[in-house]
Amino acid sequence: MHNKKRIRDYGVTIGELATGPRNAITDVEGVTVGQVTLSNGEQQTGVTAILPHQGNTFQEKLIGSSHVLNGFGKTTGTVQLAELGTLETPIVLTNTLSVGVAMDAVISYMLEHNREIGRTTGTVNPVVGECNDMLLNDIRAGFVGKEHVLQALETADSNFDEGAVGAGTGTLCYSLKGGIGSASRKIKLDHGIYTIGVLVQSNFGILRDLTVNGKYVGQELKDYIERDYEEKDKGSIMMVVATDLPVSERQLNRMIKRTANGLARTGSIMTNGSGEIAIGFSTATTIPHANNKDIISTKMIHDDDLDVAFRAVGEATEEAVLNSLVTAHEVVGRDGNKRPAFKDLLKKYQISLV
Amino acid sequence: MHNKKRIRDYGVTIGELATGPRNAITDVEGVTVGQVTLSNGEQQTGVTAILPHQGNTFQEKLIGSSHVLNGFGKTTGTVQLAELGTLETPIVLTNTLSVGVAMDAVISYMLEHNREIGRTTGTVNPVVGECNDMLLNDIRAGFVGKEHVLQALETADSNFDEGAVGAGTGTLCYSLKGGIGSASRKIKLDHGIYTIGVLVQSNFGILRDLTVNGKYVGQELKDYIERDYEEKDKGSIMMVVATDLPVSERQLNRMIKRTANGLARTGSIMTNGSGEIAIGFSTATTIPHANNKDIISTKMIHDDDLDVAFRAVGEATEEAVLNSLVTAHEVVGRDGNKRPAFKDLLKKYQISLV
Amino acid sequence: MHNKKRIRDYGVTIGELATGPRNAITDVEGVTVGQVTLSNGEQQTGVTAILPHQGNTFQEKLIGSSHVLNGFGKTTGTVQLAELGTLETPIVLTNTLSVGVAMDAVISYMLEHNREIGRTTGTVNPVVGECNDMLLNDIRAGFVGKEHVLQALETADSNFDEGAVGAGTGTLCYSLKGGIGSASRKIKLDHGIYTIGVLVQSNFGILRDLTVNGKYVGQELKDYIERDYEEKDKGSIMMVVATDLPVSERQLNRMIKRTANGLARTGSIMTNGSGEIAIGFSTATTIPHANNKDIISTKMIHDDDLDVAFRAVGEATEEAVLNSLVTAHEVVGRDGNKRPAFKDLLKKYQISLV
Amino acid sequence: MHNKKRIRDYGVTIGELATGPRNAITDVEGVTVGQVTLSNGEQQTGVTAILPHQGNTFQEKLIGSSHVLNGFGKTTGTVQLAELGTLETPIVLTNTLSVGVAMDAVISYMLEHNREIGRTTGTVNPVVGECNDMLLNDIRAGFVGKEHVLQALETADSNFDEGAVGAGTGTLCYSLKGGIGSASRKIKLDHGIYTIGVLVQSNFGILRDLTVNGKYVGQELKDYIERDYEEKDKGSIMMVVATDLPVSERQLNRMIKRTANGLARTGSIMTNGSGEIAIGFSTATTIPHANNKDIISTKMIHDDDLDVAFRAVGEATEEAVLNSLVTAHEVVGRDGNKRPAFKDLLKKYQISLV
Repeated sequence: MHNKKRIRDYGVTIGELATGPRNAITDVEGVTVGQVTLSNGEQQTGVTAILPHQGNTFQEKLIGSSHVLNGFGKTTGTVQLAELGTLETPIVLTNTLSVGVAMDAVISYMLEHNREIGRTTGTVNPVVGECNDMLLNDIRAGFVGKEHVLQALETADSNFDEGAVGAGTGTLCYSLKGGIGSASRKIKLDHGIYTIGVLVQSNFGILRDLTVNGKYVGQELKDYIERDYEEKDKGSIMMVVATDLPVSERQLNRMIKRTANGLARTGSIMTNGSGEIAIGFSTATTIPHANNKDIISTKMIHDDDLDVAFRAVGEATEEAVLNSLVTAHEVVGRDGNKRPAFKDLLKKYQISLV
Repeated sequence: MHNKKRIRDYGVTIGELATGPRNAITDVEGVTVGQVTLSNGEQQTGVTAILPHQGNTFQEKLIGSSHVLNGFGKTTGTVQLAELGTLETPIVLTNTLSVGVAMDAVISYMLEHNREIGRTTGTVNPVVGECNDMLLNDIRAGFVGKEHVLQALETADSNFDEGAVGAGTGTLCYSLKGGIGSASRKIKLDHGIYTIGVLVQSNFGILRDLTVNGKYVGQELKDYIERDYEEKDKGSIMMVVATDLPVSERQLNRMIKRTANGLARTGSIMTNGSGEIAIGFSTATTIPHANNKDIISTKMIHDDDLDVAFRAVGEATEEAVLNSLVTAHEVVGRDGNKRPAFKDLLKKYQISLV
Repeated sequence: MHNKKRIRDYGVTIGELATGPRNAITDVEGVTVGQVTLSNGEQQTGVTAILPHQGNTFQEKLIGSSHVLNGFGKTTGTVQLAELGTLETPIVLTNTLSVGVAMDAVISYMLEHNREIGRTTGTVNPVVGECNDMLLNDIRAGFVGKEHVLQALETADSNFDEGAVGAGTGTLCYSLKGGIGSASRKIKLDHGIYTIGVLVQSNFGILRDLTVNGKYVGQELKDYIERDYEEKDKGSIMMVVATDLPVSERQLNRMIKRTANGLARTGSIMTNGSGEIAIGFSTATTIPHANNKDIISTKMIHDDDLDVAFRAVGEATEEAVLNSLVTAHEVVGRDGNKRPAFKDLLKKYQISLV
Repeated sequence: MHNKKRIRDYGVTIGELATGPRNAITDVEGVTVGQVTLSNGEQQTGVTAILPHQGNTFQEKLIGSSHVLNGFGKTTGTVQLAELGTLETPIVLTNTLSVGVAMDAVISYMLEHNREIGRTTGTVNPVVGECNDMLLNDIRAGFVGKEHVLQALETADSNFDEGAVGAGTGTLCYSLKGGIGSASRKIKLDHGIYTIGVLVQSNFGILRDLTVNGKYVGQELKDYIERDYEEKDKGSIMMVVATDLPVSERQLNRMIKRTANGLARTGSIMTNGSGEIAIGFSTATTIPHANNKDIISTKMIHDDDLDVAFRAVGEATEEAVLNSLVTAHEVVGRDGNKRPAFKDLLKKYQISLV
């Protein structure tokens, strides 16, 4: 990961489980992340793309699932995910009004890599999530083009940046600057060691609710900073959960529901205006697009073994949100709207997180 | 409606309830339909837009709901529909790979008509449905542009065409040419007379299953026509249900589930590859976008009164499918692929539908 | 099966697929059905128990799923079925107000056979479905006792009776006497031949809607029989789907949704007052109760192969409903309320079903 | 409320909203709670009944909804709640294996008070929730009889006890003794002041996760108490949410989903074996059982106003869980199994909660 100071660098350890080497979603073997950041005055937006594996995702689909915590959101692809239980494209995150463009770009990308779509085989289901970055970004201007989505897809890497970058360039979190954050956990079961990684695009919450590992930091900060940052929460959060744990789509769905626990521990009350949506996939089993005329063998863990996976999802989500917050820099955007950086405030007011 | 011969003109009366004056979705006061047909060689596709009322749908939202019968589909907007229970844009239908473009066009259209979106208020939730018309249309070519969607939205009228037009230009139905079809029913309750209208984009089924009002017409036809029309069903159907009945979103959701009954009676087995999705709205209550700081009064019927509405939805769906089939003309499209017109076969082989 | 005349004996062949040897749910290897019939004056009710396999269902659970077509019903066990995707008890059907008693009886039965429940392992999830037989049965009297449920469980057999027996003793169907009916289908895939069986407890519909294989028989009969049989439909239907097809819980859920197609083809409009609930299980994979500390291997078919299974479910459901109707004898019950037998009316008015 | 020391008496204030006068679910006008405690050696179980209003709930139904956070549970009545959006009986909580008996008792109670059920009108939908109290209670013995349920229903009062009483007599919470707990919040909107109350039957969690208002008290306690209290979490929690806020069933459903936030803040990871189910009702609108042939007027708030209600649900749930924990006394039950009282440990080890 890029060398920004992350939440652990502030002495904060979330939960009890060990992290993966990068403490990021890309600790799950094969997962990469590509980002395009558009940051220039009124333009504060971008794209974050998560590639679930390095092969052809359309030909070798992964077990996938989505779960809506609060559905004031425009994520696409959830209908087919629920019906078929498989993910067949990268997951792209961007701003709310660019979902159509991003969907169109993913379609182009998939058509390019799969000549048979629309000829000898059917269609493709793009999965695109979003947050509304209208405070800092001139979201009406439609800055995100197909080329930006394609660039994000083509430059994905296991190393990626956090904070005010990619789809998190213009987002807010707890009235401060939010953005992209990630974390991971290793879990040990009798049959192996597995990784669970989470990436979030954070854009929710009001300052006074911000809680860091049980500490009501938002309450503390509230007394220092200007009143105008206190506003109605209209935000959202997209949460992508990756794992190499062999789970069925039902089990995966149960896992991604536990993102709610991590969110709640940072102070979220899941407001009305929030699109809080989790999308998950497991790299443990690939489901072939083509029907090879045989029974498909799949693997799953015993449901009793899910407890530690549930714990891991909650911990990694909580830490990913905090990483998105603490790595973000101050951004001044549309009409001079500004959101301060958490890290700057911590320093300025000499607030300790431990 | 345009003066094509519809299923009732063949002596077939579906069900027992009376139809509205147009026997179409536009019998529901305020509903209009606009279409753009792109029919030229490899290009056999288009757009059908349903405007739920003639005011500003974003400012005056309608009770709305969606239901997935089978989710091999890419319809957008369903997450927010489920969470908020309101429809705030027109519903646009097109081909599967043009959903991103159509979504982008609806966003542009809504931004144009609502200057405050992205400034003083949040975002907008476009609802776009689709079917895969790849057999007759070169779906990879992306013929549908934003301008076509805008044109469909701007030319909507209470009078509209059926058959191989709009989003139904290149679709199939029971191995024949399908397309756009509509029908309506009037229902009488103690407190008033109400209208229920359905519009479908039909693209499903194999010939031998086709049933017309209990008659196994597909079986009969199968002996006449060439074998190559018998194929695996990969199709879909989009069904839009409009009503002026005062219903809650829960009641509306119950109503639109009954589209399944109409479908089944035409012979559908709801195959794996099918996106069979119903979207409904009621014009009886408008929900203001702005919070006027007061309690909102809403109206609903007693659930006991739903039975006749359920019957109406089933009947109108069945008739709309048959109308889509019997009004469609033969289309020769991509690579010379052809689908015959039901009406031509009925005439050629002198098959009676009664 | 008992030697009552079934719908095929009237010359009616539903659909195109072959039936199993018994044309009943017990064609699925290991499935047995036990019934207790309480028929005496005001007492017209009973119990039907479906044992999903002949081993210990708690120790060796089956993939299971339920789906609510219309939820005006009191079926228990659906919450856990959805969460865990497994069936761990027999399925018991009875009258609506006896669900508590039946649930209690299933608990006793399971405790008896599994000494560790409540000691070294947790609890058990009884699955009990119901229909309201209040017209013919004095449902307030609570005639069903724990002993009847236990007796049904203990006398289950692959051969079982249909019509006005067991949980169908007092139920109605299309204003006539309904009850228990069953049917099955064989399907051929590249990797094997599989069986799908359906058992229904029918209790829905009004006479004029009754359709037999496309023929509007209800309309015909309506002119003959007394007006007072025409009533508001408050009925329900429980549908149990068994299969030996290797499917995931998601796939099984997709399958059982297709019961709707069979229902619709008999004339159902799914009224407000109806509990129309499908419960399914697959015997192909057993999921051990105990966690053996290893990854579990499961099998599933390619989703493309589901089409013929979907067709089978629709056909078998349609035929099971018709079997429930045509095998039932006339019943006179509470307050002299009476429902005629379909078979008697067919004979009396010399109506042909073909 | 009974004069046990509650969490606020320890100096702990959860959240920012004001409580109702009792700080209990019975602050919602018309709501009463009745309990029967069976505590004697092996017998450590009971019944808690929540009456949603003081009239005839069957005749005057309330808007109702349920939500499953984790579905390893046997709650009944959820199917009809979802379909019809109304609650028509009291809500009864008991132990897992007594759900059948409790359901049967509620049916008897409703039949007694509604002579027309099963005669001139249909059936009734009992709502019964449960937790598994097998560690302290001989759950196999079936100690709960119909008489206990009826007694709880008949002795309901606005004043009620918390801790190891009623359905919480034998339950655990964070490896300590859990039980019944309650709390409430007042919220102010432009059009009025409203109350939201929560009652929980707590039976989940392991000690090291216990968090009190951000303080990791479980970690602290873990070092003091014996190892054998640390066990695998197999627990559950039932959460009943009452309000006088005028909400639609969709809005109510959104509200009760926020119980998850309160749970998470006490340390819950929502384990596999947990039945975590919320059931809610609003007393603001009654829906008549009988169809009076007219349109029904209902009221709802603007969705924008839900934020403070969401906050209230989270806060009240968190506080109700803590109240259940801190009011419970030590219980020694089946086979000498014991769970200590949180209050005793706090005193013994002089642990402060602030």
